Amino acid sequence: MADGPTITTIAERAGVSIASVSRVLNGLPTRQETVRKVMAAADELGYVRNAVARSLKSRRTHQVAFAMADVGNPAYLAMLRQIQPVLKAAGYRLVLHSTDAVVADEIDVLHSLGERYVDGLIMSPLRVTDAHLQMLAAARAPVVIIGTVPEGTPVDNVRADSRTGVRLAVDHLHSLGRRRIALVNGPPDTWPGASRGAAYREALEQLGLPYDDDLVQIGDFYRAQGGRAVAELLERAPDVDALMCANDLIALGALDVLRAAGRRVPDDVAVVGMDDTDLAAASWPSLSSVSLGSAERGKAAAELLLDRLNGDDAAPRVITVPPRLVVRASTAGETYGHEGGRT
Amino acid sequence: MADGPTITTIAERAGVSIASVSRVLNGLPTRQETVRKVMAAADELGYVRNAVARSLKSRRTHQVAFAMADVGNPAYLAMLRQIQPVLKAAGYRLVLHSTDAVVADEIDVLHSLGERYVDGLIMSPLRVTDAHLQMLAAARAPVVIIGTVPEGTPVDNVRADSRTGVRLAVDHLHSLGRRRIALVNGPPDTWPGASRGAAYREALEQLGLPYDDDLVQIGDFYRAQGGRAVAELLERAPDVDALMCANDLIALGALDVLRAAGRRVPDDVAVVGMDDTDLAAASWPSLSSVSLGSAERGKAAAELLLDRLNGDDAAPRVITVPPRLVVRASTAGETYGHEGGRT
Repeated sequence: MADGPTITTIAERAGVSIASVSRVLNGLPTRQETVRKVMAAADELGYVRNAVARSLKSRRTHQVAFAMADVGNPAYLAMLRQIQPVLKAAGYRLVLHSTDAVVADEIDVLHSLGERYVDGLIMSPLRVTDAHLQMLAAARAPVVIIGTVPEGTPVDNVRADSRTGVRLAVDHLHSLGRRRIALVNGPPDTWPGASRGAAYREALEQLGLPYDDDLVQIGDFYRAQGGRAVAELLERAPDVDALMCANDLIALGALDVLRAAGRRVPDDVAVVGMDDTDLAAASWPSLSSVSLGSAERGKAAAELLLDRLNGDDAAPRVITVPPRLVVRASTAGETYGHEGGRT
Repeated sequence: MADGPTITTIAERAGVSIASVSRVLNGLPTRQETVRKVMAAADELGYVRNAVARSLKSRRTHQVAFAMADVGNPAYLAMLRQIQPVLKAAGYRLVLHSTDAVVADEIDVLHSLGERYVDGLIMSPLRVTDAHLQMLAAARAPVVIIGTVPEGTPVDNVRADSRTGVRLAVDHLHSLGRRRIALVNGPPDTWPGASRGAAYREALEQLGLPYDDDLVQIGDFYRAQGGRAVAELLERAPDVDALMCANDLIALGALDVLRAAGRRVPDDVAVVGMDDTDLAAASWPSLSSVSLGSAERGKAAAELLLDRLNGDDAAPRVITVPPRLVVRASTAGETYGHEGGRT
């Protein structure tokens, strides 16, 4: 919903057309009487910080960008749903970039900060390369990274704790009696892929389960690729009894393939996803998933960026959002009463 | 994937850091030797149209915006997947707006064209109000509307034909022997809601089926709202044997509610969605759906906009993309061999 004064409400107050308000606020030639009415209405409605200020050649654009790694992944939409209202309430228009986690595109977005189309940026890269670090060090506007950057990187940073998250999921599967627990992961050269792979190995060790290469399958963080990875895994390790999937899209691909293969979920194979997206609760069977706090991370990132836009020049901050396991039908079967329950 | 030269490839060619390239292209103070190397590399790689031109105070931003009505609806993502590569290949960076179809936000995006952050705009409004028409008439950059605008509106316009689409779906349900065919629609004050409502009525008439108010349920174009609408409908008209849903998200909500109510799909109730999104093929049961050509509409819109950006000043054009019905398990049951088949 729109908050605060807009050119629509200014036009109503001034008794002129919306197009006239737009002309005045954009500094285009307009009759003096119209300019007077629009400026008066804008003042009364408290619009000054916004477009009027812009038309007076302020260096601020009152736009902020959010560069999403995958606009088709509801984990990022959950972030967006928190980021947008926080920034809007503060008078910022949000623009989005869809980078598909392509490094050159992310670098281009960081570079574009020098063009002053936006006052700040929230970015969720899957890989943080040397090029990212160079650009972050030279960034011409405040940047908040949702993801993990090395210590000493001069930007605010909101992290998930997927290590603990994977641990929660593997412990849960173990407690249900599963012993052939596979990992279906994304690319290991991404931060999420690397950290989830290491966490899986660690979790098995802590439980005294052997690590078996045959039980680790690498795909990508998309549904179709997740499905293909699980099909390969089932051929190589037909005795698998549980899948830890590195995100919900992979897990949905797993459900597709298990169904087609006639494997019952969770009786034959239990499945856990990661991110606890809207799709997890809505899938059939509903999907147990580790929430990495997408919504909380989005909100924290927006608030950190607002602080910077308001002039805060404290040292870079790191916020880590704790994970939690949401148990649903894909592991709990007919069991009711867990959070989320069976839909 | 990134096409053409980027600051990453320029840095490699020039043998300097990415941050240095960014500084030069943004016109910031840099050592003369570095400027020379970067400009030479940029020239060799054909980068001139882009950021170098911008730094030379061109009025072009080489950015284009796509204002999406619902970033969580995969129909818009299908458009985006076509729009992004067409514009990128032509040297434009795409920025997205998520308007949630809020009129004031769409007006604000049209207004922002005057701020020259982008060279052009593709917009998919659900309602075209007088305020939209005022702003379109005064637009300070080329605009392409995906949706339907009144004759004479001075912008290019890419339309779906949901009237024929609804007709295809209702005919299909009728041919399967269904006679209590309900419509689950979005708000009738939106263009899609109004046109799908009228088309449903028309389709029944052509088939000689009576129109029954009890079989029309209004919700909104989201999954949860679709589910709630179907729950109400089932109470009021328990003998319903088919649902024509005004988009796929509504249809997915319908599947959730029918499952919870113990109604078999398609045996008890057949379900058709609209937009033929990725979710239709991936749902369980897989969802029959009317494609309104989201991908084709996105591509056409991007190409129309490019023409305008290249100086084409011909009269506004209207392109209408024809619909087609994709039959899957939610109507065809155990039948195989249709497009998409049963997943």
